[in-house]
Amino acid sequence: MASQQPPPSQHNTTPSQQPHINTADDERGRLASDAASSATTPSDPIKYPGTVLINVQGAFIEVETPELPRTPGGTVHDYHHDTSDIVLPNHKAVVSHIAVDIGGSLAKLVYFSHEHKSLEAGGRLNFLKFETDKIDSCIDFMRQLKLRHEQLNGHPPPGRPGGELCIMATGGGAFKFYDRIKDALGVEVLREDEMECLIIGLDFFINEIPNEVFTYSEESPMSFRPRPDPADPLSPSIYPYLLVNIGSGVSMIKVLGPRNFTRVGGTSLGGGTLWGLLSLLTGARNFDEMLKSAESGDNTAVDMLVGDIYGSGYGKIGLKSSTIASSFGKVYRMKREAEREAEDGGGLANGDRKHGRSGDEEEDHGKDGGDTRTFKAEDISRSLLYAVSNNIGQIAYLHAEKHGLEHIYFGGSFIGGHRQTMNTLSYAIKFWSKGEKQAYFLRHEGYLGSVGAFLKRQPPNWGRRNSLDAGAGMGNVLERIGSRT
Amino acid sequence: MASQQPPPSQHNTTPSQQPHINTADDERGRLASDAASSATTPSDPIKYPGTVLINVQGAFIEVETPELPRTPGGTVHDYHHDTSDIVLPNHKAVVSHIAVDIGGSLAKLVYFSHEHKSLEAGGRLNFLKFETDKIDSCIDFMRQLKLRHEQLNGHPPPGRPGGELCIMATGGGAFKFYDRIKDALGVEVLREDEMECLIIGLDFFINEIPNEVFTYSEESPMSFRPRPDPADPLSPSIYPYLLVNIGSGVSMIKVLGPRNFTRVGGTSLGGGTLWGLLSLLTGARNFDEMLKSAESGDNTAVDMLVGDIYGSGYGKIGLKSSTIASSFGKVYRMKREAEREAEDGGGLANGDRKHGRSGDEEEDHGKDGGDTRTFKAEDISRSLLYAVSNNIGQIAYLHAEKHGLEHIYFGGSFIGGHRQTMNTLSYAIKFWSKGEKQAYFLRHEGYLGSVGAFLKRQPPNWGRRNSLDAGAGMGNVLERIGSRT
Repeated sequence: MASQQPPPSQHNTTPSQQPHINTADDERGRLASDAASSATTPSDPIKYPGTVLINVQGAFIEVETPELPRTPGGTVHDYHHDTSDIVLPNHKAVVSHIAVDIGGSLAKLVYFSHEHKSLEAGGRLNFLKFETDKIDSCIDFMRQLKLRHEQLNGHPPPGRPGGELCIMATGGGAFKFYDRIKDALGVEVLREDEMECLIIGLDFFINEIPNEVFTYSEESPMSFRPRPDPADPLSPSIYPYLLVNIGSGVSMIKVLGPRNFTRVGGTSLGGGTLWGLLSLLTGARNFDEMLKSAESGDNTAVDMLVGDIYGSGYGKIGLKSSTIASSFGKVYRMKREAEREAEDGGGLANGDRKHGRSGDEEEDHGKDGGDTRTFKAEDISRSLLYAVSNNIGQIAYLHAEKHGLEHIYFGGSFIGGHRQTMNTLSYAIKFWSKGEKQAYFLRHEGYLGSVGAFLKRQPPNWGRRNSLDAGAGMGNVLERIGSRT
Repeated sequence: MASQQPPPSQHNTTPSQQPHINTADDERGRLASDAASSATTPSDPIKYPGTVLINVQGAFIEVETPELPRTPGGTVHDYHHDTSDIVLPNHKAVVSHIAVDIGGSLAKLVYFSHEHKSLEAGGRLNFLKFETDKIDSCIDFMRQLKLRHEQLNGHPPPGRPGGELCIMATGGGAFKFYDRIKDALGVEVLREDEMECLIIGLDFFINEIPNEVFTYSEESPMSFRPRPDPADPLSPSIYPYLLVNIGSGVSMIKVLGPRNFTRVGGTSLGGGTLWGLLSLLTGARNFDEMLKSAESGDNTAVDMLVGDIYGSGYGKIGLKSSTIASSFGKVYRMKREAEREAEDGGGLANGDRKHGRSGDEEEDHGKDGGDTRTFKAEDISRSLLYAVSNNIGQIAYLHAEKHGLEHIYFGGSFIGGHRQTMNTLSYAIKFWSKGEKQAYFLRHEGYLGSVGAFLKRQPPNWGRRNSLDAGAGMGNVLERIGSRT
């Protein structure tokens, strides 16, 4: 990284965000959907929009979304429109594709829209989430986008399919729902490899979007990392790094360069585990409720600490009294205790229930007589959030250690900008690596895959599918996307 | 390891068990509680039993316990007497100490008893578990042992405290309950370091007890590993290894030699997590019920598989369709679905509930309207057992990999001889290490710490506490216990 505060672009600044564009690199502001413009010579990029570049010059994040598109006939609850758009003030050409990353729990949609229906005013990337379970709402939303696209740009002329909307799809759902999407929309659906899209998307965010990547600590919650400066030969490479993508499950991907990545591990204890168990244990109906609940919880009401076992710390091996020895380790005993009291007729009035807690959100999870109104939903939420995050952090550290990687990026919708989650992950990396490894987060952490798929869009008839294995033209494109180091 | 079937001892054989003692090593059958017999010259080992050696010559495991001691006034349910005693047919001296390892959930007790009240017939090591929550039952049991000891051996003469029963205590509870035990029994209580005891106990089991250590696979569920043969110079060292001790929480200890060990990691997702969450989720009242339930469960009813996301496998990176992508990853969606149906008035009669399952053990965990009789206790049990075991397996592999360790021993009461657990742990090690690392299990896996504490008993006035840091006499003892390789 060249400096903490690179000078703002001469061409484009947005005072509130101070985006920095390196004007020494004329190509920097242009990102391929089809960087191989030497291979095709688009005579009219507006008329045949499959062949335009996405112009990211002057791109910045805008937090308030001016207009919230609605799905006609649907409800606003079928999707969540993220409020952090990426404004592309210099992209004036039509974009004829949208991208969707369909995971086990969530479908993440990215599309470009022009400001005020005027091409000259530039536009923005929009970010939406649907529950995968409501994939039909997602498809319906894409149909609206298709109709709008046709309204604005007309139908493509016969034999020039470039003007027609195309769907770039990745994630498992790209395969599972391929026929459904294709049949419902009647458009081309291109399926892209999930891991590759994650990496392309992450590289794009790291290299191109200001105020996107940050570190997290309690003292300095959101400390933005400046983008690498391609004009500075001393600017360190962003590679190698580990990407930890936390969705329903967790994938860990070692990345050595733009095309050089391997999935080295993962864990089935991910967001789906947290959401699933908490929906059973606390009655919470959505992720936000669960996370909010966790914020006010006290995990020590259910977790067994080193101090609970030792009566103090276990100094000899450096385990503090407050270290969590066993997540939910107090529950079994307390539940048994409560059951015995109920059986003995002592019930809730028994003063011996020193661990017993009560509150409005209590629940009875047992079926067989024992009174178990002992655990608060928020305590359970916090405990499980800690358990899952700590565990991912430790496994991420161990994989990073194994492969000699210092930089660990956390992506995926599990994080959702939630401070406790990021703090736990960040602390775990710091703790295990003794400060030698650094955790990074992103403001668009849930959209790595869909942005990667969005960027993979190539002009029609360009032969991108063959180039994927041959590595020729495609390699060039990806290098331009990812290797600005 | 010298051979698969070493010749039986010339002195002692038990036909059903074929124990093998190497008679070339005269000292082999003698294990220190006070191996430093050169430092003290016991004039009468029977009268002053603190100074005798534990004679393990001809030791073997006997599965049926002939007499089950009962705690007078207590119920049999306050403890679990393990049925695998270790018979010591050649130990004829009085043993004046018992050992207890008090963890967060369980207290594990080891004591020696003579056969038929005759010293000449040898005796056996007995193994008992108490819930730590019922520590008073455990203390009461120890009081009975003390009374019996005094009945058999009389009170010690003044100034020679060796005849009095002494408690060797380890685990966090040795510190937390120190005063309580000491006050209740009025005997000496020696506190020993937990990790050190685990290693001493494990080394003892590996080196001295036939048919104790085994590998596990579905095809060959219990394949005993022969003990290392100290007479064979080509017999490989048992070091280095990783011990993964799974109690309420999990400790991972790198062991390079008898006195050379470091706790390298651990996870709070251990037995306490499984027991705690399952007691909340399934209403099961004890560990056995939970494990039995898991055996008949189908985790794919709650886990999200790769096939659920992709509709098939994700061949490119080697993830099979049947791989668990997200533990409990189906739950949130199914619960929401059930709630929506209940809200829509569709209720349980709605034929669309394709994932819905029903059975006698159904439960309603929700509080707020949604009918969630969707999940079977046994499916939940199996899923969580897999999740916790797989996770421990992966972290164990990663630590073993980091430290270059090929042999991984799994100890701790979590395992409890349960086949699914061992199979999952064993498979995880095999999977992650591509067959290069081996998981080992023990028949007395829950008693490593208490056996270690039992073996640490030194004769009175022998200065063992000072020697712990000086490493002189103590080091000798431990080498004799652990380094027969």
